[in-house]
Parts: sequence; structure tokens; C-alpha cells
Amino acid sequence: MTQQEQLAQPGAARQLINDPSQVVPELIEGLLLTRPGLTRLAGLNVVLRSDFAALKDRQVAIISGGGSGHEPAHAGYVGPGLLTAAVAGDVFASPSTASVLAAIRAVTGEAGCLLIVKNYTGDRLNFGLAAEQAGSEYGLKVRMVVVSDDVALPDAPQPRGIAGTVFVHKVAGAAAEAGLSLDEVQAEAEQVAASVASLGLALSGCTLPGQAPDTRLGVGEIELGLGIHGEEGIERGRHDTADALTDLLLGTLLQSRRGAAVQGRAALLLNNLGTVTPMELLILTRAAVAGLAGRGVRVERLYTGSYMTSLDMKGYSLSLLPLGDALLQRLDAPADAPGWTAGALPSDVARSQPAPEVHEERLAQRAALTPETTRLEAAIRAAAQSLIDHEAQLTAWDKQVGDGDCGTTLRRGAERILADLGTYPLQDARGTLLGLARSVSASMGGSTGVLYAIFFRAAAQAVGTGERGWAALFGAGVDALGQYGGAGEGDRTMMDALLPAGREAQRGTALPTAELLGRAATAAETGADATRHLTKAGAGRSAYLSAQVLEGTPDPGAAAVALWLRALADTYRGPQSL
Amino acid sequence: MTQQEQLAQPGAARQLINDPSQVVPELIEGLLLTRPGLTRLAGLNVVLRSDFAALKDRQVAIISGGGSGHEPAHAGYVGPGLLTAAVAGDVFASPSTASVLAAIRAVTGEAGCLLIVKNYTGDRLNFGLAAEQAGSEYGLKVRMVVVSDDVALPDAPQPRGIAGTVFVHKVAGAAAEAGLSLDEVQAEAEQVAASVASLGLALSGCTLPGQAPDTRLGVGEIELGLGIHGEEGIERGRHDTADALTDLLLGTLLQSRRGAAVQGRAALLLNNLGTVTPMELLILTRAAVAGLAGRGVRVERLYTGSYMTSLDMKGYSLSLLPLGDALLQRLDAPADAPGWTAGALPSDVARSQPAPEVHEERLAQRAALTPETTRLEAAIRAAAQSLIDHEAQLTAWDKQVGDGDCGTTLRRGAERILADLGTYPLQDARGTLLGLARSVSASMGGSTGVLYAIFFRAAAQAVGTGERGWAALFGAGVDALGQYGGAGEGDRTMMDALLPAGREAQRGTALPTAELLGRAATAAETGADATRHLTKAGAGRSAYLSAQVLEGTPDPGAAAVALWLRALADTYRGPQSL
Repeated sequence: MTQQEQLAQPGAARQLINDPSQVVPELIEGLLLTRPGLTRLAGLNVVLRSDFAALKDRQVAIISGGGSGHEPAHAGYVGPGLLTAAVAGDVFASPSTASVLAAIRAVTGEAGCLLIVKNYTGDRLNFGLAAEQAGSEYGLKVRMVVVSDDVALPDAPQPRGIAGTVFVHKVAGAAAEAGLSLDEVQAEAEQVAASVASLGLALSGCTLPGQAPDTRLGVGEIELGLGIHGEEGIERGRHDTADALTDLLLGTLLQSRRGAAVQGRAALLLNNLGTVTPMELLILTRAAVAGLAGRGVRVERLYTGSYMTSLDMKGYSLSLLPLGDALLQRLDAPADAPGWTAGALPSDVARSQPAPEVHEERLAQRAALTPETTRLEAAIRAAAQSLIDHEAQLTAWDKQVGDGDCGTTLRRGAERILADLGTYPLQDARGTLLGLARSVSASMGGSTGVLYAIFFRAAAQAVGTGERGWAALFGAGVDALGQYGGAGEGDRTMMDALLPAGREAQRGTALPTAELLGRAATAAETGADATRHLTKAGAGRSAYLSAQVLEGTPDPGAAAVALWLRALADTYRGPQSL
Repeated sequence: MTQQEQLAQPGAARQLINDPSQVVPELIEGLLLTRPGLTRLAGLNVVLRSDFAALKDRQVAIISGGGSGHEPAHAGYVGPGLLTAAVAGDVFASPSTASVLAAIRAVTGEAGCLLIVKNYTGDRLNFGLAAEQAGSEYGLKVRMVVVSDDVALPDAPQPRGIAGTVFVHKVAGAAAEAGLSLDEVQAEAEQVAASVASLGLALSGCTLPGQAPDTRLGVGEIELGLGIHGEEGIERGRHDTADALTDLLLGTLLQSRRGAAVQGRAALLLNNLGTVTPMELLILTRAAVAGLAGRGVRVERLYTGSYMTSLDMKGYSLSLLPLGDALLQRLDAPADAPGWTAGALPSDVARSQPAPEVHEERLAQRAALTPETTRLEAAIRAAAQSLIDHEAQLTAWDKQVGDGDCGTTLRRGAERILADLGTYPLQDARGTLLGLARSVSASMGGSTGVLYAIFFRAAAQAVGTGERGWAALFGAGVDALGQYGGAGEGDRTMMDALLPAGREAQRGTALPTAELLGRAATAAETGADATRHLTKAGAGRSAYLSAQVLEGTPDPGAAAVALWLRALADTYRGPQSL
């Protein structure tokens, strides 16, 4: 069976890998691509700082490692202020003694070397033998710190090492970078290893490369105190809210022997075990910090992210480290590795800025009506009335080619305009346009309301910027609609009426208003009518409909533009016309 | 139904959330916890730089936003060198015009404001109307750049904005921070928006908060050219290797109109759409950079991570930005926001350091035999022979309480010791112990081989460090086993024989060797025999077995220690004894 066939097998996992046996060298290649400061030992899954040789006699080398599948652990912690090298085994398998020994020999000089090992037999033995070989065969000074931060099994003689190990990496790396001796670096690492307490919770198991997904946990089930290699948890439970699950996790963690010692100041590492989404991680962060505060633990450094994963497990772990000033200094010391993100002092989540108060411009008082403003008022009234009169027609068309609300929406806007009309300062074009914009925003829902509001507001902003003619204001409104609405001519939208009307108005600026409006209305009518035969919509709801459905029915938005433009034109041409 | 009951429903999603309607304010609280430099507008889902007021007149404000569910977008890009503010809508829904307007008004001063909007109607209209309101009501200078980087639909009049938008954030943010005018910032942002090309591929859909998972894609199916809101892709295909899928994605991307313009230098953003694991992301990175190199595109900046997600979708997108020096400078300009990680210049993945060559110490030549070394040789031979003779017994015991390989493994090691015995420099304790370590490493598999190698090497290192007596060397070996093996007395391992033997030897250093070894052997036998009644194992394979299975059978590892110690003692006490 080819790799492709295997991946497409029913029951196979949805994995983005190549040959399952090559995941480790391939991921190391990916890491080296993103990190010019790293290199590897030829033929081995050992990643080192490129400047390792220069550091050899100057500072204690820090090496960690273990099975793969926990990325960014362990190679993702190699870098200044953290690890000097990392040794990767196959997925969930200890690296060989030979690989560890090669790493030790490559990076260890006069200053000696500290191995940071999670408490699994395979890792302890392979790292341990490599340390003994390095000493007995090559005279190198090597020490080992074993991390057992998992508090899941209260009576376990050999608690597992899990995400809290990252704190040991950081503190040992910072101590080494500070030039401390091997004894001193080891002592600091051991202090952290002895005091950090971790516990995990998951909604799913994990899937090994090329294997079927672990279906141990059903939907609605959770596991508390599981391992990072798919080991079963100590307790099954029911799925619950992020707050409730985090509360359960914190309660169990703080009741453990190690956890009970965490009082007052602490660093918190909220670790994504695999496929918790960034949204969920932030929601969990909120829950964890609040839950700790409620239990008297003050989180002084918060680390949230994927630090020590378990392939695609959906779950998270919390690691708590009791903090003093000296430790805080080590945690905050500069470090540069892809897996490490500096921690933050959690700050008041309730902080906020007052939102700006709405203090929209008060429109001018309406001046005594003049023949001109009287006609304008009549024209607006006629335009609004025309939309109300044609509601049924617009609705019928929109039922055919849209979602059927066009007539109602426009009628609502028109009614509001009629109601507000007395408040518009008709002597002031800008104020009148702002008034129209506010009326439609206050009454019309959906895109149509927003589009008309944009149209009126853009026109209002154009008042006073150059020639004050209707054509210029109309053009500014149409331009804004084109930009924000994104539709052009032929897209079967209101633009099919507005754009030709705008062009016509632009061409006729020298004409009397009545004549100009008449030509614009005619152009809009022609444009709206032509939409009957546009069998493909480029925007709006009609874009989802077939040619057969569209053919013969005009776009109701375009038709509405033609209606109100014609009503304006008729008013200006009518008996009141000057 | 309570929230807990809903989450535990069959068919419900495995989500770590609380009330689905509260995910947005809750995730913002989580974000504020981790970022002291951010604040929010009271009562709105608007996140701002805390120092926004000081920036108002000094630099152009940059605002982005849109639906939530794309974390870290958009609030995760607020910070120095990036966005001034972000406006979050509900999951996959545009924020309201009022929220956008509030954000604009809060952060915009004399320098003006640029809105960066992905090309979705709701976002365009709400941001657009807010821009027009800010201008028409409050006299603020606001511009908008619309991003349409998705090349999935070649004829789409309105291509979607997806992950390439992050490049627009970065370049606009850097240009604003550099003090450029609104016109200039807008021009740079538009250049990026016009040239960045993106395409996505997924193995699963995404799950909305509180909804059932999207089961559109079955196992073995993939979708190419999908949207970040669960919109269907343009093409279905079969699941394949990471290399083949990336090749398909790159081929389609580079054949698009925008993609075809990417030649020579480019920045690549490999975006995790949700639940791609860190391991997979690195494997995909390798595939993408190699695939581009093969197509003549030189990736000069590589960005890999979760930049613009789509909830829990398993998939990734590639965004390519043609690069010039000026753009590169904007990309590399300092920026500090949780969603942004600086890019790297991908470097040669083949680079490596030669692994240290094995140059184990050459053991000394064996000197002519003396009575002492003759006896030592006889003792080692007897010890090895005893293990060979008792293979069947050890196997029988191990079949009961272990995995049955103890006898065979020890016999192999003993045979190898007998074969190598002539090469040990018996006049040199250290060389002899190293020889023994090498023999067992070369022949014994599993933990037992590692443990004996550690024992002999630790003893070898103790030679010459103080008193040279057997007891001291034996003690050093036992100590190392305790440290690396992790077992203590009562754990039903070889330590149950070694620890009492070591104590006895320590007590008897003044005694003749034969007497000392005899006492040690007796102590080991007593200890080994006592393991018959240890009904709970603290380490090793027996830890998984019940009391009934264990009762009555000794630990074979402990028994083996007693056997070889007795053989040594007998040899020293025997006729050759001096």
C-alpha cells in the first residue's frame, strides 16, 4: 500500500505527515529552516546551538531530550538562555544512549554538562548510561536532574515528568548563561524540579503517526491526570464548562503534596496538550488565573501556549511553580528559542477605557422655508412616498431574486425619513444629508440600510469640498458605495442604477436641476431595467441563484434607485418648479 | 438544559468553553491577562494599545477586526509596530458599525486612521459606514484598505481576505510606527493587499461554539481553496502525504493570477488553520520551502504558526508576498503582539556538525597474570558461568513476574563476558570494569543491559577517587543505579539484592576479600529471597502485576545479583584463595 493509500484508509487519522517513520528527521529539518541559530549532529536527531563550540568552556552545557511528539519540546527549547542541545527519540520513545552520548560529547567542555530528564525509565537509563560513559570513557563532568512534576498519582513512587519540565529548562538555562558552576546550576535545576507541580486534563487521546485515532474517550467524557504519551488518566469524568474543568484541575492539583506547597506567589504554565484552539486557550487562561486567585495563589508569571504537547491530544495541563525573587529573575532572563515565550504578570482584566460617548453633531435649526427648500422638502417626500407606494412590487421582485425583504426595508426607511423630515435643516445640504443618513441608520436593517447610510454620509462629506452641485455630492456617495460595497456595474445590484445615473449627472452639471435629475433618473431606469437580463450576480444574495431564476426580474435595489430618482426629478420638473 | 449537560450531549463538540455566547468577551479577558500593554473599550469587544492616547497625533492609527474565531486575529495583533486597535465581532460575524466607530474615535487623532478589512460584505459595510460616520460626524480622517488575498476562485469578483491580511497588518503597522503620513501608510498597505496571494487546504471543517462538529469532510478527503468561516472549498481531493498536499497547494497558488506574479524573492506565511500539531507544522514547513525552491521562489522570510485560524479546522494555508528591500524592512521592523512572531530567513536544512567520533579509550594490555589477577579472572568466569547455569530458573521466574527475557538476556551478557575476558587488563581495576561495561552493552538488550553497564561504568569512575576497595567501587555502582534506575529497596528489583549487599560490603571493608564477598553474597541472597513476599512492585514490568501473581516468586533481577555475588565469593574463598 502506498503512503497515499494508507493515509486515505477509512479509520486512518487526519494527519499532515509523510512516512510515519520519518517524522522526527523531517520535523528537525523544518525547525532548522525556521531557526538559523540551530544546527544538528550529522546522522543523529540531535539539535544544538550553532555557537556551542564557543560556549564549551565558558558555561555549563544544558541538554534535554526524550521521545518526540511533544513539540516544541525538546528541540524547540534549544537556544540562548535555554538548552545547549536536545536529543530526540522516535515518537514517544527514548533516544538511544549513543545519541545522548554524542550530544554530551559535542557540547561539553571544562564547565561540564547538566542533563534534564523527565522521569521515564527509558530516558533515565539512556541518559544515565550516556552520562556514565561520558565520564568513564571521556572524562567529562556530567550530572542529571530528573523531573517528576506530575501529581496525578499521589502514591506513585515514580511520578512522571510532564510540562513543568519547561521551567527546569528555563531556570537551568538562565543559571548556565549567568556563568554559574555545574554544582550551582544543578542545585537550581533540582530546586525547580522538586517544587513544580503539574496536572493534565483531556477530552481526547492522541494519535500516533500512521495509526488510527485513540477512541478511548467518547464525546462528553474527560480524563484527569493523564500522561503525555497517551497513558490513561487517574479519573474519568463528564465534560463540563471551561471554568468547571479548570476548577476541578486546580482543586486536584492544589490538594496534592507538591501542590499544597504552592502558596502565595507562583508561576503558572497553561500548556496546550495539542489541539486546544487559541480561542479556547484564552478562555482557559481566564479561568485558571481567576481560579488560583480564589484559592490564594497569586500568579506572578503567566505562560500560555503549546509548551509540551502530546501529538493531537485535545487537552491542557497546568503547572505551578512556587516563586521567589531569585527564581523570578531566572524566568525573566533573556532567552531565545521557538518553544519559549516570555511570561507576563497577569494584570487586571477588568481594566478598560471608557468608550467614546456618542456626541453626534447637533443639526442646525431649520431656517424659514424658501421656495428652494420647500421644493427640496417636497422632493424628498415624493421620493420616500414612491418607495412606500412600490413596496409590493419591490417585495415581489426580491422574493424572486433575493431574500424578499427589500420592499419592507425600504418602506421602513422611507417612513422614518417622512417622520424626521421636519427636523432636517433644508437650507444646509450637509445637515440634510446627515439627517437622511441618521434616519436610514435608525430604521433600516441589513446591508441596504448600511449602504444608504454610507451613500448619504459620503455625500455629506463632499459638501463644501469643491463645487456644491448635486452631481458632485451624488458622485461622492456612489464612489463610497463602490469602495465599501465592492460591487460594480453588471453585478446586479443598486450600482447598476446608481453608476449610470452618476455619469449622467456628471455630464449635465451645467443643466438646470430638473433637467439634470430627469436625465439621471432615465439613466437609472435604463440601468435597472437592464438588470433583468443579467443572469449572473456578482455580489449580494442573488450571487447564489441560477440564470433561470434571475432572467426577467430586475434587481429590486436598482429598481428602487430608479424610483426615488424619478420622484425627485418629477418634483423638480413639476408645477412648483422655478 | 445546563451548560454542562449541553457539553456532554452525544454529538456535541469537544470544546473548552463556557457559554457559547460569551466566548468573545471571555477570550478578550484572557488576552488582557497575558498582555499588560493592552486595554479595551468598556462594554465593547474593542482591544487597544494602552498607550493609544499618546500616539494619537504622532502616528497613523491602524485598526483591523472582523468576526471572531480566527484567533490570534485580530486582537492578538494589537501592539507596538502593529495594530493600534482591533474590533471583534461575534464568531464569524462582522462587528457592529457602532463598535468600529467607537474604536476609530478612541484612537484617531490628527494623523488619521487606516482600517484594514478583509473582503467580506459585512465587514466592508460596517467598517465603511463607521469610516463615513467618523468623517461626517466627527471630522476624522479615516481610510480603508480591503484585503482579498484568497486565490481559490480565479473568477471571483470579490475574492476573500484570509491569512495574507497579517502581512498588511505588519506593513501598515511598521509604516505608521515609522511616522509616515496616512496617504503613505495607505499606499504601502494597498501595495501589500494587492500583491499577497493565499490558498488554504483542510482535512476537516470547523466547529462553531456550542454546535456539532462539521462532518462535511470524511476521513481520507481534503478540500482545497476553502474559506476561514467554514465556506466550502473549490475542490475536493484525496488525502495524501504532507509533501504531496503542499505541492498541490503550491501548484494551484502559483498558477493563479496573483500567484504567478510571485517570482524570485518572497515572504511565506504558513498558517495553521486550527488544529495542525506543532510536529505537523514543521513537516509542512519543510515541504513548503522545498516546494517553492523547486519552483524558483526564494523564501526570504518564513513565518510558521497560528496566525489566522478558523476555530478547530484541521488545515493550513500558504500566503506568498513578493518581496523587495523596502517591504523586507517593514516586515523586519520591531513589533510586539502575541499573534506576531518575527520571520526567519530559511537556512540550509542540510547543515550539520559531524557527530563526535567514537574513540573509546583503548584498554591497557593485560600484564602477565599474578596470583591475584588469576583469581580475579576465575571469579569473573565463575560469576558469568553461574548466570548461564541458572538461565532456566531465571526465565521461569521472569515468566511469572516479568516479560520472561531475564534469563536469556543475562546469559547473553555472561557469554559475551566469557568471550571478552581475555582482553580485560585484570591488573587494572578501572580497565577491567570498563571492559565489563562494554561487554554487557554490546550483548544485552533492554533495561537490564543498560543497568549493568551503568553499574560497571560508575564503579570504573570510582577507581582512584579514594579508597580502592571493592566495597567503594561496588557502592558507587549501586548509587548510580539508584539514581538512574530510580528504584529503591522494596521495589522488587535488583536493588533489593544490591543495596543490602552494598551495605554489608561497606561495613566489612577491613575484612579479607573472601569474607567480605561472602557476607555481601549472603545479604544479597536474603534480600532476593525477601522479594518473594513483596506483593507490590514499585518499578519495572512487575509494577503492572497483582499481588496474587507476585506472591512466592522472587524478583529474577535480584536473584541474579545473588547468584553472581555468591559465585565471586565462592571463588575467593575456594582452593585458589591466598
